Order: sequence, then structure tokens, then C-alpha cells
Amino acid sequence: MNEALLKLERGLTGGGLDALLVTDPKHVYYLTGFASNPHERFLGLLLIRGEEPVLIVPALDAEAAHAASSVKTILTHSDTDNPYELLKSRFGGANPGSFGIEKEHFSVSRYELLADAIPAGSFSDIGHLLRAMRAVKTPEEIRIMKHAAELVEEVLRRGLSHVKAGVSENELVAELEYLMKKVGASGPSFDTMVLSGPNTALPHGVPGERIIQPGDLLMFDLGVYAGGYASDITRTFAVGEVNSKLTDIYNTVLAANEAGIAASVAGATFGSVDKAARDVIEAAGYGEYFMHRVGHGLGMDTHEYPSLHGLNTDIIANGNVFTVEPGIYVPNLGGVRIEDDVLVTAEGPQTLTSFPKELTVLSL
Amino acid sequence: MNEALLKLERGLTGGGLDALLVTDPKHVYYLTGFASNPHERFLGLLLIRGEEPVLIVPALDAEAAHAASSVKTILTHSDTDNPYELLKSRFGGANPGSFGIEKEHFSVSRYELLADAIPAGSFSDIGHLLRAMRAVKTPEEIRIMKHAAELVEEVLRRGLSHVKAGVSENELVAELEYLMKKVGASGPSFDTMVLSGPNTALPHGVPGERIIQPGDLLMFDLGVYAGGYASDITRTFAVGEVNSKLTDIYNTVLAANEAGIAASVAGATFGSVDKAARDVIEAAGYGEYFMHRVGHGLGMDTHEYPSLHGLNTDIIANGNVFTVEPGIYVPNLGGVRIEDDVLVTAEGPQTLTSFPKELTVLSL
Repeated sequence: MNEALLKLERGLTGGGLDALLVTDPKHVYYLTGFASNPHERFLGLLLIRGEEPVLIVPALDAEAAHAASSVKTILTHSDTDNPYELLKSRFGGANPGSFGIEKEHFSVSRYELLADAIPAGSFSDIGHLLRAMRAVKTPEEIRIMKHAAELVEEVLRRGLSHVKAGVSENELVAELEYLMKKVGASGPSFDTMVLSGPNTALPHGVPGERIIQPGDLLMFDLGVYAGGYASDITRTFAVGEVNSKLTDIYNTVLAANEAGIAASVAGATFGSVDKAARDVIEAAGYGEYFMHRVGHGLGMDTHEYPSLHGLNTDIIANGNVFTVEPGIYVPNLGGVRIEDDVLVTAEGPQTLTSFPKELTVLSL
Repeated sequence: MNEALLKLERGLTGGGLDALLVTDPKHVYYLTGFASNPHERFLGLLLIRGEEPVLIVPALDAEAAHAASSVKTILTHSDTDNPYELLKSRFGGANPGSFGIEKEHFSVSRYELLADAIPAGSFSDIGHLLRAMRAVKTPEEIRIMKHAAELVEEVLRRGLSHVKAGVSENELVAELEYLMKKVGASGPSFDTMVLSGPNTALPHGVPGERIIQPGDLLMFDLGVYAGGYASDITRTFAVGEVNSKLTDIYNTVLAANEAGIAASVAGATFGSVDKAARDVIEAAGYGEYFMHRVGHGLGMDTHEYPSLHGLNTDIIANGNVFTVEPGIYVPNLGGVRIEDDVLVTAEGPQTLTSFPKELTVLSL
């Protein structure tokens, strides 16, 4: 068994579980090395106390699973089989007293099928076990994440050369996502966002056919997957001369970004990172326009544990990687967000992203 | 209320429910016109019998929701609010006897939070209500889906010009996804698949750095989203002269594809489409190499109800749209899959995809 699987087995024993079932495809990859997207089909890694782990995959993934998985006991099911009966067969007629599942990933429908086939004494959540493992990145994971950050910055750098008269938000998205593949990334880690002018005031706006105009703010929020890990960066630019109020907003967000990064130290709470950035924005009088948390954990998922909101009292540890991305969004005027990927180390916070942050003026 | 929402309300009454909660972002879009990706944040449409529907969105989506949603009562929650308490407040202290939720979309974690805040008499699944509505496409939906199919075929047509000496699977994927944006699609409707040579024998293989070679089969499986709807097509080509066994496999798959399409008529079972295609492949002696169902429903999701596997006895209706995509995958030799998007009409099956299907030889 690999290191991660051994840790999980210790979690099973330590948590007083008789068995556990991992069903998030990302976690199956993390634990076995087998990456797949089973769509609505069943994929699971079953660990019964004292027994070898078993990987259950759709029949059409059997060859790929055998090639990639470090767990070598692989059971397959076709589209007409009931995978829950296959699971049940591993328990040899005895029902587990306590069965761990990923409650955040497991749907109520699947839960009912599982509980029907295997009426365990109780079902408990193993999400915290996997989150705790994943939140502290190994040196190898950090190496991969640095690479993913370098790639997205190369994409952003090259992408800026496409900002010219007549170009639309959608065209810039197309160029950026093309560049992602060109530089060697697997693809975007989320829907690439290019917003311009008043559209920047929508924190979750959707790029459209709007043509970039002089006087616009131009916001890029993009990330790539590389080696199974995500990067995520936001930079906001000025197109020609912008309203002085927008410049003031920009400088406020930049100061908030830097305050959030500086607060990213082991021993502090995740909430204190949000507070450090929010204090800067509130002091400048823009508090009501910063209506989201300051960031989120980053790793195999673009959004993963921890959530960096003000009430999170969990404690930061060395090896944590998360985004720090304060923003100010003033309806009908514009918005600014500046986002870095931060790695917490014993020597203090490091940013995996290093793209310049002073307000850069692009010309069309 | 729009037509879809009225249907849902009739489903609520007809199903004896006191309230229902829609949480799949696709369904919220279908019912309200508000499209969003809430990530791990709570998004829901709450319908209480006899009351106006209420949309609950994360605070940072408030502006976008007000702009797009036909449901005008919109409640927001920030990252530090408990959205389940917000839901509870709508019931005015009384708990519903029967509360409908989307059990396939709702996680066990969320279910526990919901049931804690609102201890309903029972929770029942409303998935079938939404599935039944979505499976029968309206003329407007069909118009959009035809356009999505045209776009993906334009991408495939243009993409083929990039098949030349020295090109890799990954480079072709990058070209295709770039073309998707260029032709006006929102983006890929799933991970674009380009597989070559022996890699074609993996039904869910992942494109890599392999360079296309003479004698290869070259399989493209791609789709786009356009106007919120997915297309999905697979074509397999020969690169120069291929092994005669592969030609035989190709012709068998083509005959199976055509048999499956011909069987796609209202009144028959979905399972009979699978059987019609499978019979052709089994008669040719390749039965063991066709290890997946023949297709899946297509619409706002790339994979949606119905699943076209042999045991599905649900009945085909006019207006259904699904894929017919038989394949034969012989390890270490190669694989062929041919996939069309089929619309069932009173005049018989129509294909939304019309890209040529006779074996086409590409030269490098």
C-alpha cells in the first residue's frame, strides 16, 4: 500500500470504523493513481478492516484501471450489474457496524441503494480524513502545483498580446484556453473568465460578446490543470486611462491581497486571512462591495478545503495551499479582484503565482 | 410562472408533496433562466404548495440572478450564513409533511443539514419529475440542439485539416477545443477525446503525446455546449492503409450504429435500441468487445436520462434525444466507435449529426 492508503487505513482504525468506501474520483486517484471520470457509473475504493483494499470500476475502464492503479484487486461491473451487490459480496454476509462514506460526495440516491444492500449499524462521514490528508501538500504535490502556476502565468502573459482593438471577451477566452493546451496543461481548471468594463462588477459573471473598450477594466480569472493539480490566478488590468475611482479601488484591493498573504502563517486561523484582507477594504469604505470570502483551498480540486471565510477557526498548517483573492465590485462602475495562490511554509507565506500586481495599463 | 415551472407545480400537487427543493444548477436554469455554477455554495429553488416560488442564491450571484431569473423572489446568503435556516424561515414554523428533493443531486451531507433544519415527515425524490420534463424536448430545445450539433460538426470538419505528420493526440485536442470557441460554442460538453492506434482500444482512454502514425485508426469523440445544450459525436478514421481486420470492425460498428438508429422509434423500449446494435456486433463475433451501453440521453447534460442499456424497459417518446454509439474495442489492436445524436419524431428517427460515416482514409 502507498503512503496515502496507509494513512487512510490508520484513519479507519483510529475512527473505529469497520469499513469505508471512497467514491470521489479525485480521491480514488489520490489513493490509487487511477484517474477517471466515471460519469454516472459507480466507481469506488472499498477498505474493510483487516482486508486488502478493493477497487470497483465500470467494465469499460478495466484496462485503464489495471494499468494505472496501485490497488491490484479490481472488480468490474457492466451497465446492467448492480454495483452495490458487488460491494455487499465483499462483506461475506456480515454487515459492518460502522461504515464510513464520503457524505459530501455521496448522493442521497446512492446512499439509499448502499444502505439497502448493506444495512450497516451506522454510516459516518470520512470527508475530514481525506480533507486533512489533502490539505497538507507533500513536496511532490508542491512541485506539481508550482508548475501548474507557472503554466497559467505563461498563458496569461501570452494571452495579453491578444488584447487589441475589436477583440471580445469570448475571443480572449478562446485564446487563453488554446494557449493552455499549447503550453502543456491538461486544460482549464474552471471556466476561464474574461470580463470587461461594467461586467467586471459581477463576481461570477460570464464572458460574452462584449468588445474591449478604452477606459475598461479588464479582469482575467483563469487556472489550469497540470499533473492533476489546479492553479488559479486573477489579475485586473486597465485598458487605457480609467476613472480615478477605479484606480483607488485597484490600490485598495492590492493592499488587501497583500495583507491577506501576510496573514497566511501557520498557527493562525483561516478566518484571520479573510479578516486581514477585509479590514483593508472596510477601512477604505468599500466593505459592502466585497461580498465573498477571501479564498479557498487549492489542490486536486480548484475549490477544496479549507474555505477562507471570516468564521473559519480551523488552524493554518505548513504545507497548506490556498488562494487569497479579495475583490471590490461596484455595480454599474466596475470591479477589481487580485488573486494569488499561497503556500504556507515554516519560513512564512510564499506565493506560487508571481505575475506583476501593480496596475498595468494595456493599450488597444 | 413559465411553462416548465407550472409543470413542476402540477407535479408537486399530483405527487402529494407539500414542498420541493430543486438544487441541480442545470434544473434551476431550466426552470428560471438563471444559469450559474455555485461551486460548493448553496443554490436552490424552493416551491411550497400554494406559495410563490423562491430562488435562493449565494450573495455574490445576486445581481446576475436578478438580471436572468424569471422567479423574482430572490433570497441571498453570504458565505457565513446558514442557507438551511433561510429555507426553514419560509415554512413559518410548520414542517412539511412530504418534502421533495433531488436525491441524485443532493449529497448526504446536505441532506443531513436540511433534515436537521426542516424535519419533514418524509423526503421523496423529485428526480423523475424533472427527468420526465427534460427527456421530451420542446421545439425550441430541438432548434438549439440542432445548432449545437452543427457547430461540433464544423469543428470536426475543420479539425481534420490539422491531421498531419508529427501531430500528437494532445495537439489535436487543443486545436479542436480552440475551434469550438471560434465557431461560437460555449466550450466542450465533455473532455475532448482524440485517440490513435492501439489507444483506440480504450473506450474511456485519455489523449496523450502519442504522434499519429500511418496505419492508425484515429478516433474523435467530442461535443460542444451551445445555448446551454450539448452535442456529442464520435467518428473514427483510417490514417493511410489499415489492417483489414480493422476495416471489418469498422463496417460492423457502422451497421450496428445504423441498426440502433433505425430502432429509435416511439413506443419501443430504450433497451431495444441497445439490443438492435448489439445483435449486429454479436452476430459478427465481436460481442465481448462491446462492453458498454449503446447510448445516453442528451440535452442540458451530456449524459442524462434515459440510459440506453439492454435492460431499460422505459418507453421511447417523440421528442426524446439520445446518442447511439456502439463500439468494438480489441485490446492491442484498436477500436472503433461511431456515434450520432438521434431525435425521435412521429416521422421516425432523425439524426441531428450528419457527418459522413463511410470509412474515410486520411493521409499525413
